[in-house]
Amino acid sequence: MNKIVVSIITIGDELLIGQVIDTNSAWMAQELNKNGIWVGRRVAVGDNREDIVRALDEESRRADVILITGGLGPTADDITKPVLLDYFGGKLVVDEGALANVKWIFERVLKRPMIERNLQQAEVPDTCTVIQNRRGTAPGMWFEREGRIYVSMPGVPHEMKGMITDSVLPALRQRFQLPHIAHRTLLTAGIGESFLAEHIKLFEEALPASIKLAYLPNYGMVRLQLTIRGEDPAALDAELQQQFDRLKALVTEWMVTDEDITMQEAVGRLLKAKGKTLGTAESCTGGYIAHLITSIPGSSHYFKGSIVSYDNAVKTSTLHVDPQTLETDGAVSEATVRQMVRGALAVLDTDYVIATSGIMGPDGGTPEKPVGTVWVAVGNRQNIVAQKMSFRFDRQRNIELTATNALNQLRIFMAGAE
Amino acid sequence: MNKIVVSIITIGDELLIGQVIDTNSAWMAQELNKNGIWVGRRVAVGDNREDIVRALDEESRRADVILITGGLGPTADDITKPVLLDYFGGKLVVDEGALANVKWIFERVLKRPMIERNLQQAEVPDTCTVIQNRRGTAPGMWFEREGRIYVSMPGVPHEMKGMITDSVLPALRQRFQLPHIAHRTLLTAGIGESFLAEHIKLFEEALPASIKLAYLPNYGMVRLQLTIRGEDPAALDAELQQQFDRLKALVTEWMVTDEDITMQEAVGRLLKAKGKTLGTAESCTGGYIAHLITSIPGSSHYFKGSIVSYDNAVKTSTLHVDPQTLETDGAVSEATVRQMVRGALAVLDTDYVIATSGIMGPDGGTPEKPVGTVWVAVGNRQNIVAQKMSFRFDRQRNIELTATNALNQLRIFMAGAE
Repeated sequence: MNKIVVSIITIGDELLIGQVIDTNSAWMAQELNKNGIWVGRRVAVGDNREDIVRALDEESRRADVILITGGLGPTADDITKPVLLDYFGGKLVVDEGALANVKWIFERVLKRPMIERNLQQAEVPDTCTVIQNRRGTAPGMWFEREGRIYVSMPGVPHEMKGMITDSVLPALRQRFQLPHIAHRTLLTAGIGESFLAEHIKLFEEALPASIKLAYLPNYGMVRLQLTIRGEDPAALDAELQQQFDRLKALVTEWMVTDEDITMQEAVGRLLKAKGKTLGTAESCTGGYIAHLITSIPGSSHYFKGSIVSYDNAVKTSTLHVDPQTLETDGAVSEATVRQMVRGALAVLDTDYVIATSGIMGPDGGTPEKPVGTVWVAVGNRQNIVAQKMSFRFDRQRNIELTATNALNQLRIFMAGAE
Repeated sequence: MNKIVVSIITIGDELLIGQVIDTNSAWMAQELNKNGIWVGRRVAVGDNREDIVRALDEESRRADVILITGGLGPTADDITKPVLLDYFGGKLVVDEGALANVKWIFERVLKRPMIERNLQQAEVPDTCTVIQNRRGTAPGMWFEREGRIYVSMPGVPHEMKGMITDSVLPALRQRFQLPHIAHRTLLTAGIGESFLAEHIKLFEEALPASIKLAYLPNYGMVRLQLTIRGEDPAALDAELQQQFDRLKALVTEWMVTDEDITMQEAVGRLLKAKGKTLGTAESCTGGYIAHLITSIPGSSHYFKGSIVSYDNAVKTSTLHVDPQTLETDGAVSEATVRQMVRGALAVLDTDYVIATSGIMGPDGGTPEKPVGTVWVAVGNRQNIVAQKMSFRFDRQRNIELTATNALNQLRIFMAGAE
């Protein structure tokens, strides 16, 4: 077994002024993890020679493989390539493959004329092996020194992803004998992290040293993940399965799914399995639930559509909510969300409907209905269940929490509707 | 002037296995930046004593302030507190303020009984100053050593945000004489980064050393940001304004807004200024455009709603798209999106409508209409403009690109509709 440790260095001032959220590192870590490669550290530095060199030096002391993204663009603030040229030595040469690729991208994909700056992107230090970039103009660069591997890739997510999948991971798998690593994950909703921890305390204490339990809380849900690593795949998988079954039995009451999928994927699979369709009638969530559902490939098999009735006029005209109800009970009320479900069942002609109406903030709250007051209803033609929730704090979080809770309520409703 | 440098250390295995995207660092960097505080590095390490200590040692060598998030939860995998206790010395004591807060949170907010584990969260090393956490149970801890400040906060975003805003930033402002830092940002769409760079090359080369230009590309848009820092606020602001005006004049053709706001905020402001309303008729974007718009506080002033017609039956029943058109031209066609605009104008009763229909992938493409083929139409009662777009690659990216482009087309249409 060859345990290799990776450090990720992301380069770019935009990461340090906070204008870009680093989603690349998380994606890379996931892919590496699936292959039994452990990410030891992630470091973000600015477009600054001294900081980049220091990061390369420091990570070289602890990692076998150093993955670098960012700073390869065609503009003057992108200095990764000249810094790597200095760091690894050599001289800049035009890589014919990269040049052909730049030309291909412009002719076939971008359909724009090229400029000198783009051609320069095909120049690389002659001390590296080029990794072709089929999705953009900046080639990747693979350097080796003192048994350590350094891979520089663009920061554009889909370009980086193409290179990792097509070139970097296959090369690492070939180079190293990777350890066996396995995860089992389940998702709970409706129970806080500390209560969950208390509930499974004895289980956790009795876990063998080879298995690690992680709590991953997120918007009213907690994901529990067991991770095992070692050398004998069959024995490890058996051990993991046994512990995972024990864990599942302990949390059945709150378990959404025993797979590593999202709430919306779990709901989608349930609908597909039952051959049922879903629609949403969204006020306060403004289309976010529909977006979560339709982010999943194949969701057109069970999702028919949504009436986003942000304005009360749309609630009455399209969902046929009684204007009198809006007058007496208000838009954020049990009566309204129940009528929204009934209206959407008819208009969208689906088996199930989720409806939401609430006050997301920061404005619009009253003493009786403060910001964070939300009514959710889920139902079918036989039955509708409504629930009031009280969230707090900020708009984005209230939207997320409402969506998660609404999807979970539908899941519970569907289980009971059998 | 006192130039202070911050390092951010985020702690948690979930960051290294990629299950959580680190949005905290970006938010902190933004807030610090606004206050003239520069983030020099960001480091993510696992829930591992040795790695946490090494990160503390290394960042102590370069930063004046070290902000630490994560690893303060009530569960066994959270080890930040014991590690900090060792690192800074002292003994654990119950902080009365933190204890009262834990009790308050459980009684008033969570409305659940407390357990021992939660009470333990009120214990802190007696070598720190406690930062109260009004939004959760884990208190923040402020340590000082050799003139350096270390602040440990929970990783839960809204808890960390409350502490930074209410306690950490005010304390840092009081402690340091912060430099003046100012940004001016504009957003462009419809021009690639390298073309933009070529177009403003002379401007960039002539910039004074005190001003830095950053290119921040994102889903078919490029944000250009000028940053100045120094001591004399009035002189710096004047200099920055002068350069920003020059830059604006150079990119007028592609400029969406000269403020640091998103495309959807820019469109929202336009609608508000004109006193006009908007609705969307979304097929392939599945409610995402409605979500982007309604994420903005106050959007109910101009956004009435959306018909998410994911299924063709909803296109005909609710948006009155001609079944014959769907038959002959297909759902992804100019005729369909034009009819979707007309239908939504009537159903939602708005001044403007955006309609989308496309093939987002990974499945559903044909040789004639490959994955990434999207039709967008925008219009009002007088006129409708439709445009075909060809994207590539993955579903999420296609949804994002379609939304951005559709909003930009509406913006251009509204400018012409004067």
